[in-house]
Amino acid sequence: MIESLRLDEIRAARQQLGERVRTTPVHQWESPTLDELLGSETRVHLKLELLQRTGTFKPRGALLNMLQLSAEELARGVTAISAGNHAVAVAFAARSLGVDAKVVMIKTANPLRVELCRRYGATLEFAETAHAGFERVREIERTERRAFIHPFEGRVTALGTATVGLEFCEQVAPLDAVIVPVGGGGLCAGIASAVKVLWPACRVFGVEPTGADSMRRSFEAGEPRSIERVATIADSLGAPYAAPITFELCRRNVEAITLVSDAELREAMRHTLREFKLAVEPAGASALAALLGPLRETLRGRRVGLIVCGSNIDAASYARLVQPDS
Amino acid sequence: MIESLRLDEIRAARQQLGERVRTTPVHQWESPTLDELLGSETRVHLKLELLQRTGTFKPRGALLNMLQLSAEELARGVTAISAGNHAVAVAFAARSLGVDAKVVMIKTANPLRVELCRRYGATLEFAETAHAGFERVREIERTERRAFIHPFEGRVTALGTATVGLEFCEQVAPLDAVIVPVGGGGLCAGIASAVKVLWPACRVFGVEPTGADSMRRSFEAGEPRSIERVATIADSLGAPYAAPITFELCRRNVEAITLVSDAELREAMRHTLREFKLAVEPAGASALAALLGPLRETLRGRRVGLIVCGSNIDAASYARLVQPDS
Repeated sequence: MIESLRLDEIRAARQQLGERVRTTPVHQWESPTLDELLGSETRVHLKLELLQRTGTFKPRGALLNMLQLSAEELARGVTAISAGNHAVAVAFAARSLGVDAKVVMIKTANPLRVELCRRYGATLEFAETAHAGFERVREIERTERRAFIHPFEGRVTALGTATVGLEFCEQVAPLDAVIVPVGGGGLCAGIASAVKVLWPACRVFGVEPTGADSMRRSFEAGEPRSIERVATIADSLGAPYAAPITFELCRRNVEAITLVSDAELREAMRHTLREFKLAVEPAGASALAALLGPLRETLRGRRVGLIVCGSNIDAASYARLVQPDS
Repeated sequence: MIESLRLDEIRAARQQLGERVRTTPVHQWESPTLDELLGSETRVHLKLELLQRTGTFKPRGALLNMLQLSAEELARGVTAISAGNHAVAVAFAARSLGVDAKVVMIKTANPLRVELCRRYGATLEFAETAHAGFERVREIERTERRAFIHPFEGRVTALGTATVGLEFCEQVAPLDAVIVPVGGGGLCAGIASAVKVLWPACRVFGVEPTGADSMRRSFEAGEPRSIERVATIADSLGAPYAAPITFELCRRNVEAITLVSDAELREAMRHTLREFKLAVEPAGASALAALLGPLRETLRGRRVGLIVCGSNIDAASYARLVQPDS
């Protein structure tokens, strides 16, 4: 039986993270473009979690997990597997706690994320595929007795990401809906839990890329499912499976998982550049893509929150993605 | 005799602007990259004025000028000339005060700025050159009896931009230096005035593109000078001359005008993308370009403030500028 996250636990998590993570700012979208696209009654607030240390929300879960380890466990170091941003967060968290980190990255990881991991002082290994990487990290866990920090699963991870929701609820007046990007679902599990406790009437929507819809399929099946193939420009949302705790917390608190195409993600990246002056990787634009795409009529005229979950992307890749199609 | 800006006047200006403009957030740069580039002692705070309404600081001066007009003057409408961002601000300010605006834009203005002007409901005219545009706007002022809102000159304009400095000084602990972009110098005149009143020990540096160095030449000459040719990718900093009040307020409060090349601006845009997740037009990256370029050794290990003055740029132009050179 998976217990729901309680408000006192979420508050305690935020307190435990303390100054190690930032309370990221909220930005209100106000422009004639918004009025034209969604009607002048619509209010949109963006939680700018991309201004978090390391560029994404990931340190909240990574740090909170590490803070539960004993001194003995910490002394043996940590390990993690990631397409990039979780690896960066684990490297950062390890450095800030004075712990050794060895991370396995998938070799297609964005070069900026690889560079950041190195700069935070982690030892790096590369894997050909996500599957091979998961095997290798489990081997490191076994042979080196390092603590494995999961990229999205677990109740503590959800408590970490719930602190994003807690902050958001304290920063703005109650909203009608919040849209949260879904990769493995760790961010969504936490934020949805916090939002539903603090604003029971608020609807929470998850958003996945069409080419990495493990949570959507899990919702349809009523249990966690894997997908065979990940094909999306939103590499940070490319988790190949949904895991039990994350799935269950999402199922209880999320109204629906919506899907967005690569074209919708690129268009939302361009809107994000023009309207908010933010340079985001595709995942960071996914909540806006859902608002301007599948949820547009549903949320027209409503008070909406968008989670801008993070961004670490090199200039060349970014330029290629936002360049309008010729 | 040009009077310095007094603190009580700057405070009154901020109060008069009220909720019409945003108190923009400040972001602290913390990353291994900063440690490597400038040493781990260096502290850098960015004033994110690009999150201001209309995307730049310009509404502060435009609104404050319009708020000094009589009901009769307002009823006759306003006019302005601009490469883009001031025109957008005048269109926005006019709409928010229920006033008619006719703006002259130089025909090379970034397409996003043209679109924004239209969306804010201004009547647009296009001029072949800055020179022709200034002539045309003076003609509109004369024949239509519209109030001319200057893009950078004037004591009221400086009081408007001084509110950026006032906010910054209230948001962070005293800094050793602040770097401010200089086009016509209106932003710099105001911010430098506010900073020197509130933090007398803080050094203020202006930054101009090498291809539009009217303020630098004016400093050298000891009086306002024009330049014959403007050649820079930082189109928002391309003012062809320095004007008396702006020049005098800068001369009193600014330690030096530093110059940055187009290559340094592009490199700073890429850093801005990677480190702060911000998509800025060249002007918005100019303070960082000065910090990483000509001021690097001077400011190593110091507490530095950077003014990210604004950004309105279309995706295609932005992608072209940040694309690493092949």
